[in-house]
Amino acid sequence: MSRWTNIIEDLLSRVSDIGNTILVNSNTDSEKLCLSQKCLALLSNVGEATGLARSRDILEDYKKLDKSEQLAFFQQVYTDFGVDEALLRKTVNEWLLHPKKIEARQIHSLSEPRSQELIRRLNLAYGGTASLVKMREDLLQHTKEDPSLLALDKDFQHLFTSWFNNGFLRLERINWSTPATILEKVIAYEAVHEIQGWDELRLRVAANDRRLYAFFHPSLSDEPLIFVEVALTNDMPDQISSILAGDRESLDPHFATTAVFYSISNCQTGLRGISFGNFLIKQVVEELKRELPNLKRFVTMSPVPGLRRWIDSKPTLNKNMQSLVNELTPLTSKPDNAFIEKNHHSLYQLVSYYLLEAKNKKGGPFDPVSKFHLGNGARLEQINLWADNSKRGFSGSWGIMVNYEYDLNSIEINHEHFLREGIISTSPTIKRLNKNS
Amino acid sequence: MSRWTNIIEDLLSRVSDIGNTILVNSNTDSEKLCLSQKCLALLSNVGEATGLARSRDILEDYKKLDKSEQLAFFQQVYTDFGVDEALLRKTVNEWLLHPKKIEARQIHSLSEPRSQELIRRLNLAYGGTASLVKMREDLLQHTKEDPSLLALDKDFQHLFTSWFNNGFLRLERINWSTPATILEKVIAYEAVHEIQGWDELRLRVAANDRRLYAFFHPSLSDEPLIFVEVALTNDMPDQISSILAGDRESLDPHFATTAVFYSISNCQTGLRGISFGNFLIKQVVEELKRELPNLKRFVTMSPVPGLRRWIDSKPTLNKNMQSLVNELTPLTSKPDNAFIEKNHHSLYQLVSYYLLEAKNKKGGPFDPVSKFHLGNGARLEQINLWADNSKRGFSGSWGIMVNYEYDLNSIEINHEHFLREGIISTSPTIKRLNKNS
Amino acid sequence: MSRWTNIIEDLLSRVSDIGNTILVNSNTDSEKLCLSQKCLALLSNVGEATGLARSRDILEDYKKLDKSEQLAFFQQVYTDFGVDEALLRKTVNEWLLHPKKIEARQIHSLSEPRSQELIRRLNLAYGGTASLVKMREDLLQHTKEDPSLLALDKDFQHLFTSWFNNGFLRLERINWSTPATILEKVIAYEAVHEIQGWDELRLRVAANDRRLYAFFHPSLSDEPLIFVEVALTNDMPDQISSILAGDRESLDPHFATTAVFYSISNCQTGLRGISFGNFLIKQVVEELKRELPNLKRFVTMSPVPGLRRWIDSKPTLNKNMQSLVNELTPLTSKPDNAFIEKNHHSLYQLVSYYLLEAKNKKGGPFDPVSKFHLGNGARLEQINLWADNSKRGFSGSWGIMVNYEYDLNSIEINHEHFLREGIISTSPTIKRLNKNS
Amino acid sequence: MSRWTNIIEDLLSRVSDIGNTILVNSNTDSEKLCLSQKCLALLSNVGEATGLARSRDILEDYKKLDKSEQLAFFQQVYTDFGVDEALLRKTVNEWLLHPKKIEARQIHSLSEPRSQELIRRLNLAYGGTASLVKMREDLLQHTKEDPSLLALDKDFQHLFTSWFNNGFLRLERINWSTPATILEKVIAYEAVHEIQGWDELRLRVAANDRRLYAFFHPSLSDEPLIFVEVALTNDMPDQISSILAGDRESLDPHFATTAVFYSISNCQTGLRGISFGNFLIKQVVEELKRELPNLKRFVTMSPVPGLRRWIDSKPTLNKNMQSLVNELTPLTSKPDNAFIEKNHHSLYQLVSYYLLEAKNKKGGPFDPVSKFHLGNGARLEQINLWADNSKRGFSGSWGIMVNYEYDLNSIEINHEHFLREGIISTSPTIKRLNKNS
Repeated sequence: MSRWTNIIEDLLSRVSDIGNTILVNSNTDSEKLCLSQKCLALLSNVGEATGLARSRDILEDYKKLDKSEQLAFFQQVYTDFGVDEALLRKTVNEWLLHPKKIEARQIHSLSEPRSQELIRRLNLAYGGTASLVKMREDLLQHTKEDPSLLALDKDFQHLFTSWFNNGFLRLERINWSTPATILEKVIAYEAVHEIQGWDELRLRVAANDRRLYAFFHPSLSDEPLIFVEVALTNDMPDQISSILAGDRESLDPHFATTAVFYSISNCQTGLRGISFGNFLIKQVVEELKRELPNLKRFVTMSPVPGLRRWIDSKPTLNKNMQSLVNELTPLTSKPDNAFIEKNHHSLYQLVSYYLLEAKNKKGGPFDPVSKFHLGNGARLEQINLWADNSKRGFSGSWGIMVNYEYDLNSIEINHEHFLREGIISTSPTIKRLNKNS
Repeated sequence: MSRWTNIIEDLLSRVSDIGNTILVNSNTDSEKLCLSQKCLALLSNVGEATGLARSRDILEDYKKLDKSEQLAFFQQVYTDFGVDEALLRKTVNEWLLHPKKIEARQIHSLSEPRSQELIRRLNLAYGGTASLVKMREDLLQHTKEDPSLLALDKDFQHLFTSWFNNGFLRLERINWSTPATILEKVIAYEAVHEIQGWDELRLRVAANDRRLYAFFHPSLSDEPLIFVEVALTNDMPDQISSILAGDRESLDPHFATTAVFYSISNCQTGLRGISFGNFLIKQVVEELKRELPNLKRFVTMSPVPGLRRWIDSKPTLNKNMQSLVNELTPLTSKPDNAFIEKNHHSLYQLVSYYLLEAKNKKGGPFDPVSKFHLGNGARLEQINLWADNSKRGFSGSWGIMVNYEYDLNSIEINHEHFLREGIISTSPTIKRLNKNS
Repeated sequence: MSRWTNIIEDLLSRVSDIGNTILVNSNTDSEKLCLSQKCLALLSNVGEATGLARSRDILEDYKKLDKSEQLAFFQQVYTDFGVDEALLRKTVNEWLLHPKKIEARQIHSLSEPRSQELIRRLNLAYGGTASLVKMREDLLQHTKEDPSLLALDKDFQHLFTSWFNNGFLRLERINWSTPATILEKVIAYEAVHEIQGWDELRLRVAANDRRLYAFFHPSLSDEPLIFVEVALTNDMPDQISSILAGDRESLDPHFATTAVFYSISNCQTGLRGISFGNFLIKQVVEELKRELPNLKRFVTMSPVPGLRRWIDSKPTLNKNMQSLVNELTPLTSKPDNAFIEKNHHSLYQLVSYYLLEAKNKKGGPFDPVSKFHLGNGARLEQINLWADNSKRGFSGSWGIMVNYEYDLNSIEINHEHFLREGIISTSPTIKRLNKNS
Repeated sequence: MSRWTNIIEDLLSRVSDIGNTILVNSNTDSEKLCLSQKCLALLSNVGEATGLARSRDILEDYKKLDKSEQLAFFQQVYTDFGVDEALLRKTVNEWLLHPKKIEARQIHSLSEPRSQELIRRLNLAYGGTASLVKMREDLLQHTKEDPSLLALDKDFQHLFTSWFNNGFLRLERINWSTPATILEKVIAYEAVHEIQGWDELRLRVAANDRRLYAFFHPSLSDEPLIFVEVALTNDMPDQISSILAGDRESLDPHFATTAVFYSISNCQTGLRGISFGNFLIKQVVEELKRELPNLKRFVTMSPVPGLRRWIDSKPTLNKNMQSLVNELTPLTSKPDNAFIEKNHHSLYQLVSYYLLEAKNKKGGPFDPVSKFHLGNGARLEQINLWADNSKRGFSGSWGIMVNYEYDLNSIEINHEHFLREGIISTSPTIKRLNKNS
């Protein structure tokens, strides 16, 4: 396989080179064209050999742009590669007068911005897909400054949704036989519980009772899209340290009863909005059940990243909770036992209230992690106080973590209730805590 | 790789099974839903596990339809999965009144028929891509009866153009080490010079001086999309028999000077309109140049499939040519030498005139093979009389074949002249023949 | 993998070429050396680059020899590459006088014929292993003419026993995804029930209820060493036609109860005497049990190739049997029902007597197939009259076939009883038949 | 491939398990057999299923032995698995009386110690080869205590020489796409210039101008046998630091003129005496020449590990050299410039004299590294003072290193002159230095 990859890379380079020669020798003097002019030329009706050379040329030129040049480039593309409005106007008027179905579909083709064809052609260059994912990463940054670029981003998102359709992905287990070039990306991309070098990585991927699974796309063969880390245990954990500890005893996976998803990391900023997590978790559950029929429970050990942000937004709280918040806010590390004992119950109530009642602007759960797992059909199972005493854990949610449970028998019904009626599936304990708060 | 394929297949089956269980147990009583209702359910906002089960369910139900049920299904999809016209009308009216660019792009999203999302979701099932390619093959047939379905076909074509972007294809050489499951498809798909069983296949792929290259897509791993057969020779051939003969002496490829593309076969009817040929030829030229620097010429040995069809359309011919046509028409096999000698020159003139002057409705070359190669930038190099004396060759064009030449130094300029001005690049001999005709 | 194979092939060629240059340029004038002189030079203490070149040179020269030259070559090697007898004599005399253990082992090294080192060095050339296997195939033929060469053959056999140790073999399933280059060898090597072309091969390897497994060696990657064909059925068969029939209905392997080993073919004549069959059958049994736990019985459907040969050797038979034999001998095809009914019982008795009592010169079973399976620990289970009515089946044993059963619970005990005491494990029916004969 | 490896591993485990069951159930009560009794049972004529189980059993029992038990085990094997002396004596006497060639070869078979067959049978267990290599590593240690075991070691060496014949090895480039499980072994096995963790490894294998090649054997797929590290440079180096420096600028390999072999590490102590280095260097030279035709010189950057050991053996030196030695001996690190300048020339003379004149007991070069490269046909090219100022470099040879050059045009002639006449090929400078010393 990699042999062909090499040959094709080689070929594509050569095809491009020939195209380049032609470009250079032709009288269009492409050297002096600016980037967006080159893009226009790429879309003109020329042959693919030149097209390939132009694609590569454009992608390489693009890499040399600084931030402000990028912004200018995106704005130019946005302006120049839009819809042919005159034609659209004409067709739309006809359609309004003579509305037949065929016409409504025609409007779709006619209103396709030319930027989509531009992106499709840029993908022809070897490594084009990776370059375009990177390009969108840049674009997303610029949309903060210039929100009109969100419309251009729609084009990337539209194509990426097609290209990265879950039907094209392949699941792979990452272990100690994986090439170093991929392993070092796992170190780099781990977003939840940082991996400090190769020895720690080895604990995460090579221990008998640890697993790491990733999705890959055929055109990004060395780049995981998303990965999930799993611990095989005997119990649902209530402390992240029991999972991350380097000196723990390893468990024979054939005696494990519980699979704990303790970290999910999206790897490609340029694929934001194309969702893989739901599908990944379900595939990994199936893979694990197949390999280890002894597994009975599939749970997460998840952070509560929105908790303190929500507190900072000054929600209306009852007196009891507000006073707890006042005491918690100044803390910078795990308090003493006296504090813990005193506030134990109130803290559970506060978190239950947050998870079940706090909403974002669209009316969904305020907490993004909660929203993700509940949306997948998981059940809110258990709240764990002082479960992540790292600096990061404490500053995000005073060390509080949550277990969500993926119970395949109820996952669909949960999912539908959640989506249609906003009902959150939860354990009786949490439900009770919230009621009494 | 194939190990993961198996596992994923397995997983996907199981995920689907679980979804199925849920479907069966749920109160929607899906068993009794008709196919298009199932499609509507698939598009409703349910979780992916059910979605996967539904996708598989729909694709399997679809396979059981007979031709008339297929037609009804496509018509229903065309009707039910169109554009939300009320919303579109509202937006379009706003845009006409307040035309800002952002709105024009919005029209694109709003006018996307729901059939596209349906196709994207069906692709999630394992083997979904292959099933969808097959489904479009059926759809194309039904468009003859019901041309309104051409609009539905646009949706398939739109997505397939994205999914089968040349950037995602991989070139592979097919030889005697290729799995039998692919080799037997080469036998089945060869569309130009039929392959009679495994012994003849061996001559085409395993002889030292023969090559066969194909494009594959990662999601259709056992199915070639298109392939080209190449003979390595010392001369540009003027007889197809010199290439197909079973008892010829094999040439050491390191002494070959000429690569002859003597057969190009598109394999997937369901991918009609998504073009691979141009890119394939150019990649194979590069691959061969890299491996065998001794190769100096890249030519085709091509049929002239439109010639007799054109004659049958009764074009206006000069007296000389018309009288030749009158003599040729009754022939059913290669005539005697007297006939050949007498009509030799006129026949060259007739074919030159056909290739250079006969146009289709859009003003391009009447001959589809000619249109393909000239459009790729090839040069019309040589006409070969009585070059294919098979029944098929004779009934198509009285056995006449043509060499087109791919000269990398002029391919782009040819291409541009042809596309922009309709100029056909041709050898002086043919040009002269036509002038004097 | 194959990429490295190519590179290494390339490298080895080049290393050889350099060595060749040196050989040619050197004053030893190797061109004029005869083959056995070249072998002597190879064993002299020169560097490996030359050694590699000489190895290749010798193996290529060897290929050009005709039969009589081969014989001369082997005789020369036998003569020239023997033991250093003077040294051996000296050491042996010392040992006889001063017998210490260390000396006995030293005799082993000192008595190693130089032909063994020659063979080891010839193996360095790329493709050396395959060439040496072929060379031994030739040698075996010449031993018929010149039995003294059997001593030389011992050297080959000694090294091949080490090189083809079962620990180095890998089991592979051959199916329709296997490269054609291997599949065509299966057609060529099938020694029991001939395969008539690719369509029949497909029935044997690609049907759901058929399997074919082979052993491969890393240095002979495209050459199976031995393969076994398996049918998955519901019953122990009594007719080979029920297995070979092209138009039978295929059985879902998950409902099969019985695996029938109906053909075992050794592929490499040059590996005669190095046994793979016992190990192969046991590994395949394990592989099938793992994949299809529903399988309960593992039996063979075996020919009785020695039966008529034994009859031809005029064994002493009782009157009953002798008269049957007299009637059977003139038959050339399956007789009419009257004959069958009349002789039914006697024929069973004759075959039982043959299988249980007829011995070869060493006191083992006369029938070689019987000897193989009984030696592996199988049980003689059932005799099937008129089970193979092909010309071949009839001329070997009047169409009689036998089922041997591999019952993993008794395989070891059978094996030990057979080997130590000559006891044949057999079904009560056959035992009874023999007793009453 | 690895899929089959798994399946076979699985199979072999199961075959073994069945055998184990049989063993346990049988009345031989194997549990109580000691290890050497188990070895005797393995050699008895029992079936392979039991054999496989016994092999695994023995290898696992062996792993649990402590050092003194190992010694006892090897001594027992040495005693019990020797030659059948009575038979050998009889045959030898016959041969002395009736000396025919066939008999001399027969002595070879008859004098084979049974330990060889034992080793061959132990190899049947999955992972047997690796276990046997490890077992020999232990055995080699015990030979120091009990030199009689050297005779047993001969059996291992004899079989390993056959099994690890260069014709069975495959060359692989190790780079950043290599599985971590192999990369970490490179870190562990590097014997010349230690690799401090993954970041340093990356510099050695992933930099553009660095290469690492290893030999692998099919039965030890995760274990390199030997590897060589190569730097691509513009000059023959005179300082190891210029190669090992982490912050150097990387060179485009297409502009490199020189390949420097700066480290060769044998990885398997248990394969001592089976030489791979000569073949490895020559294959890597060929591989590099093929890939990078710009390379003109192939040199080493080698330590001089015997120098100080030779000095310690108090060789007779001329007055000049002896006085230099007296000054050098107390040094523990690089001296000041005054010392260097003063002794510059004498030091060159001393090293030249050492390399050209100092001999080991067999009359070959005293320095083992020198002996290796000269024996391969390399030329002694340049002496580099103060070239390795690490503690290790200084304590071995006062930091002196040497370049040997592999010049393919003279490699054979050098090799032959060295082997036949002891002539050392050397540069004129070194020759001159020695003459004048």
